[in-house]
Amino acid sequence: MRITALAGGIGGARFLRGLLHHLDSVPTDGTPHEVTVVGNTADDVTLHGLRVCPDLDTVMYTLGGGIHEGQGWGREDERFTVAEELAAYGQGPDWFTLGDRDIATHVVRTRLLGQGMPLSEVTAALCDRWKPGVRLLPMSDDRVETHVVVDDEDAEGGRRAIHFQEWWVRLHAAVPARQILAVGIEQARPAPGVLEALREADVVLLPPSNPVVSIGTILGVPGVRDALRGTRAPVVGVSPIVGGAPVRGMADACLTAIGVETSAAAVAGLYADFLDGWLVDTSDDGTVPTGGDRPAVRAVPLLMTDVAAAGAIAGAALDLAAGLTSPVA
Amino acid sequence: MRITALAGGIGGARFLRGLLHHLDSVPTDGTPHEVTVVGNTADDVTLHGLRVCPDLDTVMYTLGGGIHEGQGWGREDERFTVAEELAAYGQGPDWFTLGDRDIATHVVRTRLLGQGMPLSEVTAALCDRWKPGVRLLPMSDDRVETHVVVDDEDAEGGRRAIHFQEWWVRLHAAVPARQILAVGIEQARPAPGVLEALREADVVLLPPSNPVVSIGTILGVPGVRDALRGTRAPVVGVSPIVGGAPVRGMADACLTAIGVETSAAAVAGLYADFLDGWLVDTSDDGTVPTGGDRPAVRAVPLLMTDVAAAGAIAGAALDLAAGLTSPVA
Repeated sequence: MRITALAGGIGGARFLRGLLHHLDSVPTDGTPHEVTVVGNTADDVTLHGLRVCPDLDTVMYTLGGGIHEGQGWGREDERFTVAEELAAYGQGPDWFTLGDRDIATHVVRTRLLGQGMPLSEVTAALCDRWKPGVRLLPMSDDRVETHVVVDDEDAEGGRRAIHFQEWWVRLHAAVPARQILAVGIEQARPAPGVLEALREADVVLLPPSNPVVSIGTILGVPGVRDALRGTRAPVVGVSPIVGGAPVRGMADACLTAIGVETSAAAVAGLYADFLDGWLVDTSDDGTVPTGGDRPAVRAVPLLMTDVAAAGAIAGAALDLAAGLTSPVA
Repeated sequence: MRITALAGGIGGARFLRGLLHHLDSVPTDGTPHEVTVVGNTADDVTLHGLRVCPDLDTVMYTLGGGIHEGQGWGREDERFTVAEELAAYGQGPDWFTLGDRDIATHVVRTRLLGQGMPLSEVTAALCDRWKPGVRLLPMSDDRVETHVVVDDEDAEGGRRAIHFQEWWVRLHAAVPARQILAVGIEQARPAPGVLEALREADVVLLPPSNPVVSIGTILGVPGVRDALRGTRAPVVGVSPIVGGAPVRGMADACLTAIGVETSAAAVAGLYADFLDGWLVDTSDDGTVPTGGDRPAVRAVPLLMTDVAAAGAIAGAALDLAAGLTSPVA
């Protein structure tokens, strides 16, 4: 079975870990299951001259066994010597945590990018170490950066655009986002393999990642949405919204910015043109309209309390997909 | 008193610390003593994409109180988390020790250089933190790199050039240097302030730094040697060779490569065109020819066993200078 998944950060990574766990129990026809992950890169940021790819790293560390389990991002057993020294030099920003172990990843990435290697190859080189068990592709080798337009306190009626990470991490998304811009996305090309992986998959999965700044930006890369509309594979998504609130993260602030209600139904609406199946939490059972061209909906418990729970959700998503098409395995 | 000193790494840095210690006891005419240090940058190296300036950093850390006292280079209380992670990525080289604290310096430097800031300004920015008590100038803002030509074991009679740091650190200078090349030096311009500091000094000092790859490369920057020949200040050097051997480091291997004997007299000969005074160790008393145009020679104990001992050597160098000219202070 060839599975292609889009993914943001923590939620996507945990879902994918569950998926791999679940696939261990699914018989193959002799060829191993193949999972390709198309990772969001629009919240990448350059800090201290180092290129940081938070979502790719969260997927890589989570699937490779290096993640800080408690916080869901960054490395386990982390220290902050370099960050302390950078602060001693008066070098900002200091609101984005960079651990010593994590920094090595960014040093390697920055060097390879500086040598002209595209991000997709750099990511493959980093994964040579972590062996995440999936093929991890950035959505694009071209630079796309999500910027958030907020009110400018220094100019009445004025607004200013800040990097997504500044809004998300430094401001905790507590300042209203007036607009969310994926700068550079119109010119971005899908990374090599991305469109093929969507077109040639047996199943396409949308983990419970942020529908605006994770899944949304991947969908914004020219060609990706068309590939999802055109793929012969069933496309099944897992709602990131449970009972009217994001399971984690601050997706509600992002949805509000684009004028979309924070509900499982509204998020499904964002994917209406290609979504075949939609997995919602049991608490949202019956809240998503069905019938006609609308996706099939199934309700299961969506809290990924551990790997087994995430595996059960992934299994339910694959079950839903299998019911939508001829057998996929 | 305006003092300008050339400097390499450990020996130069310890001498300079002694000099500052000594100057604390020298009365001023109301304006504080000013020390300008012209640091060697020809053994700078790019590792993991980070620009490392070993000699500038050794001076900065030593005078700023951050040096690892035992080894004479790098930071005290150092850890190696980043280096361990880089090794886990299979990213070389692993023969050049980069501690976590030290790496922050290189991250800041690399970012500022990448923004187009010249090395002299970057160095000043780093010194804003360390407050070394001297004005630390790189010999040049242009890139100069010392390469060492060694026999190539893979090709009979063949030779290859390697970066100085590879020869010095990885090979411990144990492989004969057939030639030592300062790549880029003909095109290098002295950093802003370097020539003025030499011309307008009251005293110019040459600490006991490596005469080939530290002092020698600074002298190789076009204009520097002329400034030393033309300065009105007495130029006094401290021999890095004691009893026919380098006090520390492997200067003998460098001297052999350029066909110069490892002796206090032979090193003085390298500076013959501008040297006014030469401080040698008591064990070398009488071994350096004097008279005619030759520099005045004085013998004192040259082992910098502690800051006070280094201060006494610096004081002797200033005394020697004072005897060569009208009073300088």
